[in-house]
Amino acid sequence: MYQAPLTDIRFTLKELAGLDDVLALPGYDEATPDLVEAVLQENARFVEQAIAPLNRAGDRQPPVWRDGAVATSPGYAAAYADYAAGGWQGLQHPVSWGGQGLPKLVAAVANETINSACLSFSLCPLLTDGVIEALLTVGSESLRNTYVPNLVSGKWTGTMNLTEPQAGSDLAQVAMRAVPQQDGTYRLSGQKIFITYGEHDMAENIVHLVLARTPDAPAGVKGISLFVVPKFLPGDGGRLGPRNDVWCASIEHKLGIHGSPTAVLLYGAGKGEAGEGAVGYLVGEENRGLEYMFIMMNAARFAVGQQGVAVAERATQQAFAYARDRIQGRAVEGSPGPVAIAHHPDVQRMLLTMRALTEGGRAISYMAAAARDTAAHHPDAGTRDRHRALYELLVPVVKGFCTESAVEVASLGIQVHGGTGYIEETGAAQHYRDARILPIYEGTTAIQANDLLGRKLLRDGGATAARIQQDMQVTLAALDAAAGRAQGDDAQGLLLLRTNLATAMQAQQQALGFMARTAMTDVRAVFAGSVPFLMLTGVLVGGWQMARAAVACQRELADAAGGRWPREFLHNKMTTAVFYGAHILPRAGAWSSAIQAGGVIEACVRRSDIA
Amino acid sequence: MYQAPLTDIRFTLKELAGLDDVLALPGYDEATPDLVEAVLQENARFVEQAIAPLNRAGDRQPPVWRDGAVATSPGYAAAYADYAAGGWQGLQHPVSWGGQGLPKLVAAVANETINSACLSFSLCPLLTDGVIEALLTVGSESLRNTYVPNLVSGKWTGTMNLTEPQAGSDLAQVAMRAVPQQDGTYRLSGQKIFITYGEHDMAENIVHLVLARTPDAPAGVKGISLFVVPKFLPGDGGRLGPRNDVWCASIEHKLGIHGSPTAVLLYGAGKGEAGEGAVGYLVGEENRGLEYMFIMMNAARFAVGQQGVAVAERATQQAFAYARDRIQGRAVEGSPGPVAIAHHPDVQRMLLTMRALTEGGRAISYMAAAARDTAAHHPDAGTRDRHRALYELLVPVVKGFCTESAVEVASLGIQVHGGTGYIEETGAAQHYRDARILPIYEGTTAIQANDLLGRKLLRDGGATAARIQQDMQVTLAALDAAAGRAQGDDAQGLLLLRTNLATAMQAQQQALGFMARTAMTDVRAVFAGSVPFLMLTGVLVGGWQMARAAVACQRELADAAGGRWPREFLHNKMTTAVFYGAHILPRAGAWSSAIQAGGVIEACVRRSDIA
Repeated sequence: MYQAPLTDIRFTLKELAGLDDVLALPGYDEATPDLVEAVLQENARFVEQAIAPLNRAGDRQPPVWRDGAVATSPGYAAAYADYAAGGWQGLQHPVSWGGQGLPKLVAAVANETINSACLSFSLCPLLTDGVIEALLTVGSESLRNTYVPNLVSGKWTGTMNLTEPQAGSDLAQVAMRAVPQQDGTYRLSGQKIFITYGEHDMAENIVHLVLARTPDAPAGVKGISLFVVPKFLPGDGGRLGPRNDVWCASIEHKLGIHGSPTAVLLYGAGKGEAGEGAVGYLVGEENRGLEYMFIMMNAARFAVGQQGVAVAERATQQAFAYARDRIQGRAVEGSPGPVAIAHHPDVQRMLLTMRALTEGGRAISYMAAAARDTAAHHPDAGTRDRHRALYELLVPVVKGFCTESAVEVASLGIQVHGGTGYIEETGAAQHYRDARILPIYEGTTAIQANDLLGRKLLRDGGATAARIQQDMQVTLAALDAAAGRAQGDDAQGLLLLRTNLATAMQAQQQALGFMARTAMTDVRAVFAGSVPFLMLTGVLVGGWQMARAAVACQRELADAAGGRWPREFLHNKMTTAVFYGAHILPRAGAWSSAIQAGGVIEACVRRSDIA
Repeated sequence: MYQAPLTDIRFTLKELAGLDDVLALPGYDEATPDLVEAVLQENARFVEQAIAPLNRAGDRQPPVWRDGAVATSPGYAAAYADYAAGGWQGLQHPVSWGGQGLPKLVAAVANETINSACLSFSLCPLLTDGVIEALLTVGSESLRNTYVPNLVSGKWTGTMNLTEPQAGSDLAQVAMRAVPQQDGTYRLSGQKIFITYGEHDMAENIVHLVLARTPDAPAGVKGISLFVVPKFLPGDGGRLGPRNDVWCASIEHKLGIHGSPTAVLLYGAGKGEAGEGAVGYLVGEENRGLEYMFIMMNAARFAVGQQGVAVAERATQQAFAYARDRIQGRAVEGSPGPVAIAHHPDVQRMLLTMRALTEGGRAISYMAAAARDTAAHHPDAGTRDRHRALYELLVPVVKGFCTESAVEVASLGIQVHGGTGYIEETGAAQHYRDARILPIYEGTTAIQANDLLGRKLLRDGGATAARIQQDMQVTLAALDAAAGRAQGDDAQGLLLLRTNLATAMQAQQQALGFMARTAMTDVRAVFAGSVPFLMLTGVLVGGWQMARAAVACQRELADAAGGRWPREFLHNKMTTAVFYGAHILPRAGAWSSAIQAGGVIEACVRRSDIA
């Protein structure tokens, strides 16, 4: 069963993400360290007890569709009621709208732990967060007043309706129609697919955010508008009005996240109580829908990236428990009898790979969340801008790297279990099935890589990337200094981290150099390395944060007064950091090499049958 | 739907694995090139038409257990009857036992294609092959006469019974009891788990090969004996005798290979028609069971490694078909409208990664099969010994690398499909679920790596590994020469392959050097890199074979007379080879780096909480 890894969370918040600085920002006056600690503990208790048990239940007893209604898995509706009653949906939303106004950094912890506890359940509040964010950013006062309080309280839930059968990653092909009416509303008709929690029985109303096209809209992405389409129209005095003309035609049979209903939604089938065509309310202005969607996209992608950390954490905990319990085989150095498999070097390699990718991902995501808080609250405009750029550059890395890592970690989780891991009853296989959606939804890894390369990296002429490299130089110096102060084994480990971090930094610089040289002459050769570059950057930034963790560990271990962290934790963290340096950071070189071969590959591909 | 990739198979057989040399070996006089071609074509027709349709059927309608009997998935029994009637089970077995006596190299093709067509179905004949091999190698004349003809004809099927709940990878813990009887038979009692096709309705009898312990046997692996335990005792005149006391208690609910029944078998429950205790016949001598098992283990592991190639091939075919069909997004270099996703650089990267790992794995496995034929049939004893050593060194590489690659390829197959790949109906997810067992059964990747490192590599003082490095040097020279003769783009590609192959060779040498230096002082630090070393070796040997393929492509493309292969095929193969060089070979450096950090990691691990 899942336990929130509170010590590593606290260490990452304080030593790496700068929690104290975030709490000192204007606007977070009530978020004291004591309050944050209380939230962490209460959150851990809640997700461990109320949410974690849902994970297997949802996998084994998926939601059932009947006559357009969806009955969710056993326990989901009751847990959602507890979630809403506990005020968890409002954690990061403004106090003025009924939320608690806590920093995104603190909300990030809650998002991670609830997704560890049950990914399928947590998708519902995750999407509601997105709808709240969109309405607060671009919704009219009337829309905000009608919907936001009910969403923040958890009374209603939200969805995002982007995909249509012919329009997946390519939103230019969205065809859903929205026809303006004399009363200022629109009537929507068409089909949306892959709508997470598009229909369910956990809340009284569902608020769909829908991309659609008005009759005279230009073709392509510049003719897409954004609409609010509620399942029930809002009535008087907080009561529900007529049933709107949006219907769940079926739910999908998926590889994983079985507990999360994935709906096909039909708009305008003519069966609503408010006449034919689903009544929709325009968000912002016509034809700017995609632009608005991108505002909330960063937040949603960040949250999905954290789901990668979350599933990885849960798979890692399960693998550690099994490996310590399962007695099998003698020690390679000799032992009187069989030993726990956690003693075998290759099982340790797998466990440490799992831990390294999980903790590296956690560090990147918390660092990004802190940057977002600083971007929103820092008094200095220049500081805000720099942190916004950092956050936006990190979002595709968090989404792409942490979710790809989750697939690798969950796969290793099965391997640690051996044949037992292949039996569904064990539970390891569920993580492997669940994790596989993460590099796909909210934009595939390739979409993230295009965003990183085509938008985030170039937007400021590479200034943000250059600042990260400068900050990493500071860490290299800190590693040197720490290695000088450390005892034997730790000194070796710190030096190895220093060497491999510097090599990975160079690998990134060489990749960037190739891309800069080639972008004007052979753009395909550059984009042949887009995902490799995203993965390289994730490997590198994760390694940088693990290196900073190692420096902090050395400082704390040397503290004669005992330090602020349990010594056993510090030894583990140091081990994980060194392992990351030894096994994960060298991947940067392999990715860089592949990126720099882009031109040669592209030349061969042109004569092949691929496209 | 699956199509046997006959052109790549022929190319790999002839240009890389030396089919002509194998066919010229003594004892293969009847295996003419024309006969082999006829077998390839007939095999392709058979598996495409009769076996491939079983794949989804078995996944959706798994076998059903009731009262100890197992009804297999729809179509399985009929297809098995066709398989037996077609003589496919006997392909590689001696003519004197009713087989066709074809080279293992040819049988390897048939094993690959039938596993591509349906992994779940093919496990049954694969295990029967293992039982035939064991009985022919160490069975008494009586056992051979009774069982082998019925197994070769496909009338009966075979199983391997190793695992018990407390004895998975650690066979020293096998506890099944075998008590000798006055008539020379034994009575077995105990429980075996994870028995593939341990019970089914496809054949009239099932022949279990069972590891068990006699009453006075020494503890550990030196007290394990091997028994034949048939479901029905053999009766007079080819009729079945009494039902033996071995029973299927249940079958497992697994992540994948749903069509393959995985049985829990109870021996000695007292319900048989021949009295209490399952009647078993000793194979060879008492206490040498594990040794015998290892004889057939190489063949079974090789066959499972090929399953990795097989699933990878099928996933690759499906991803190519989807990517060419699915229209989504503009070309990165600009296009008037949306294009097939196969045109996008990152989709091409995924497709080529899939193809490279598949074709690299195919080349390694055929090369190993040819070595086995040479080891068995070459007139010169020294040549036989060298090829046996080569085969045995390659077996853990084929098993470990090709199955780990299959998981990667199947995962990419889902990613190419995007959200559609996550829907079970599409079929991509099945490959991902099916592939995940391959690095586990018949010995996990760690077990393979221990075999490679602890046994195969050191046994001859590294002579076989050194010979491979020498052969790779020859390929480096051939790459240089080919690059000199080639036209612009191909020359660049060949030089890139040359550079990256040489770098990967050096990476292996450095890893070997570290391991040799460290083995005496810190064996745990060496085994911390065991799987990385196996993966490095797979990456390298696959890259070597792809480099040889590139050299052959250059030669054929330059052939003014037109060459022996379709030019489109040659361009594709060259592209795949160059891509392998650019994207796969650099992984060798990352693995090597990790291996060489073994000592530093081990020092940190000692102070951590892992074990």
